[in-house]
Amino acid sequence: MVSPELSTHPLAGDPVFDLHVGGKLETVSRVRLAGADELSLAYTPGVARVCTAIAENPALTQEYTWVPNVVAVVTDGTAVLGLGDIGPAAAMPVMEGKAVLFKEFGGVDSVPICLATTDVDEIVETVERMAPSFGGINLEDISAPRCFEIEARLKESLDIPVFHDDQHGTAVVALAALTNALTVTGRTPAETRVVISGAGAAGVAVAKILLGAGYADIAVLDRQGVLSSERSDLTPIKSEIARATADNFLRCGSLADVMKGADVYIGVSGGSVPEEVVASMAENAIIFGLANPTPEVHPDLAHKYAAVVATGRSDFPNQINNVLAFPGIFRGTFDVGARSITEGMKLAAAEALAGLVGDDLRANHIIPSPFDPRVGPAVAAAVAEAARRDGVARK
Amino acid sequence: MVSPELSTHPLAGDPVFDLHVGGKLETVSRVRLAGADELSLAYTPGVARVCTAIAENPALTQEYTWVPNVVAVVTDGTAVLGLGDIGPAAAMPVMEGKAVLFKEFGGVDSVPICLATTDVDEIVETVERMAPSFGGINLEDISAPRCFEIEARLKESLDIPVFHDDQHGTAVVALAALTNALTVTGRTPAETRVVISGAGAAGVAVAKILLGAGYADIAVLDRQGVLSSERSDLTPIKSEIARATADNFLRCGSLADVMKGADVYIGVSGGSVPEEVVASMAENAIIFGLANPTPEVHPDLAHKYAAVVATGRSDFPNQINNVLAFPGIFRGTFDVGARSITEGMKLAAAEALAGLVGDDLRANHIIPSPFDPRVGPAVAAAVAEAARRDGVARK
Repeated sequence: MVSPELSTHPLAGDPVFDLHVGGKLETVSRVRLAGADELSLAYTPGVARVCTAIAENPALTQEYTWVPNVVAVVTDGTAVLGLGDIGPAAAMPVMEGKAVLFKEFGGVDSVPICLATTDVDEIVETVERMAPSFGGINLEDISAPRCFEIEARLKESLDIPVFHDDQHGTAVVALAALTNALTVTGRTPAETRVVISGAGAAGVAVAKILLGAGYADIAVLDRQGVLSSERSDLTPIKSEIARATADNFLRCGSLADVMKGADVYIGVSGGSVPEEVVASMAENAIIFGLANPTPEVHPDLAHKYAAVVATGRSDFPNQINNVLAFPGIFRGTFDVGARSITEGMKLAAAEALAGLVGDDLRANHIIPSPFDPRVGPAVAAAVAEAARRDGVARK
Repeated sequence: MVSPELSTHPLAGDPVFDLHVGGKLETVSRVRLAGADELSLAYTPGVARVCTAIAENPALTQEYTWVPNVVAVVTDGTAVLGLGDIGPAAAMPVMEGKAVLFKEFGGVDSVPICLATTDVDEIVETVERMAPSFGGINLEDISAPRCFEIEARLKESLDIPVFHDDQHGTAVVALAALTNALTVTGRTPAETRVVISGAGAAGVAVAKILLGAGYADIAVLDRQGVLSSERSDLTPIKSEIARATADNFLRCGSLADVMKGADVYIGVSGGSVPEEVVASMAENAIIFGLANPTPEVHPDLAHKYAAVVATGRSDFPNQINNVLAFPGIFRGTFDVGARSITEGMKLAAAEALAGLVGDDLRANHIIPSPFDPRVGPAVAAAVAEAARRDGVARK
């Protein structure tokens, strides 16, 4: 093997840039190619027999190619981390990082695909055309509300799982943490009043998974206030959320209005919550400020009023980190050849994650560490079982 | 890391299928992720600084992502090996094999992309949209004449190298072998009369590279006979080839007509050549029967009339194998960040390959073995130097 030359790079000496020289990902052969005999098995003439077998029985793709274990991490670069619309080239380091995490934490092969288009129709048709190459599609960092339509259309047209991690990964981990936070504070989902600040990809998905998990009293807010049918400015997805959440409890108004007496605050919006608003929450409140790097409620402030506090940061306790979910979810999905990732599979992932905390459960430990080696296998097993239960498993 | 379960597979016991279980390729992290500190460098929050740097200066993609070292192996499955139009799913084992060879013989990362469309416009726009993800595009097993238009349009629209290996890989290795065969038989390109049987991707590309290398008297044939302007049934590319080859020597007619007195026969067509036609060639003829698995002229027959014989098979001497070319060509191209792969770079690759045989040159050894470790580096160095000479190198 010939190695690429590495020159001194422009930002040498900075540990982040030093680590990124040459990229974070590589493709590697799983077969030995020491001589002509091995070449004739892995490539011509031997490979022709594998091609012929798959042409006659397409299901053999699952046995004799890497397809059933490889996920495309697809972005258009419009909503990258907290950076926004930085385009496909600048999005690549995040997508490579995602691919690395897929492999390290789930044994899932992964290819970053950064697209030179932000048009919904073009993204959908491009992914549809690439689809025979992949066992699943992980949409990443695509701005709302385009992400909802892209995901819905691809789920409809493809027979492989499509998952938008900014929605569902966040939702699964938030639900797992909230499940344990309720136990710590002695609440049940049905009697817990939840405020979700942010109605983008994460906010919408967190609301939906909480509804699926038995939470009833939820208010979701965008910059204009609570999503309710009193408003005339809602997109279709926001209208749907309004009807399923605040409408049922006649909640409306501003963040300050709905935070009074609320049990749970989940921030997925950026921005910051004034102290008097935080102070107006119920006793033993639960505060998840998930914006990175600056939580909507700083933990120091949150702890003055809340019993359980979580953030998206690794330097505080209770980190809500998507890496707890997506590798295991795809591992379990691929292990049983699931055609899709159902609501049941997401709920099962959250339940498995929450369960791993076990006897160690306390206010400052409501969610496992990403480096807990039990996480990937436990999530995968729960997801695989749910896939079988939901009838989407192919094996 | 969690490993996928491997079950007993349908064709267990067959060494080709045993080797293919689970596929031949995987993605692997180039960075260690042992703990939270490393995660915060490779992923959030550290990665955001790399994204921002690239957003401000897109050239940093070349330093801090895997993009400049990764080639997409793109097919629509319409002309796979000798199997023909077997579709994208069945083409995957060949594309994975190609990806493995890219890495093993060139240190080039590679991703197989099998497309669910055979429409030229759709293939072109799909590849254009994926292009920010890759440092180069290797088109593979796309049927002629569509392959010519797809390649030409992508070369025009993209600023990364686009290479159709069935054309140019074959052409480079055939030229290298022919260069040495001429030395063995005491000929020069200008005075050598060449017959190329087959006017698909390989035939067209071999004709073009021979013209670039100083060969003048070439006749290219399709199933209807010699490509000449006397014919009214030629596609645009065949007309172009006719004008550049047979027209200049007023050659026309059938294979039997042009083989009389010909010095070189290059078969890239399948089919078989009758013995009396082989017998009509010049003294000390050169016969390359490159169809796989059945050469157009079997070596036993060829040796009765020819001084030098080559095939596409590994079980005879003088194997014309694309793997001698494409890994080193992309290695050299990537090493200097070349924007395209020029005719000069292909000629340099052929010259480097031919030169490696050196003092061992004899009729049964006109081309190196694919397992000769000097091949990849020698081709890469020659290609990189030619890229600089041709002004397409970016570094």
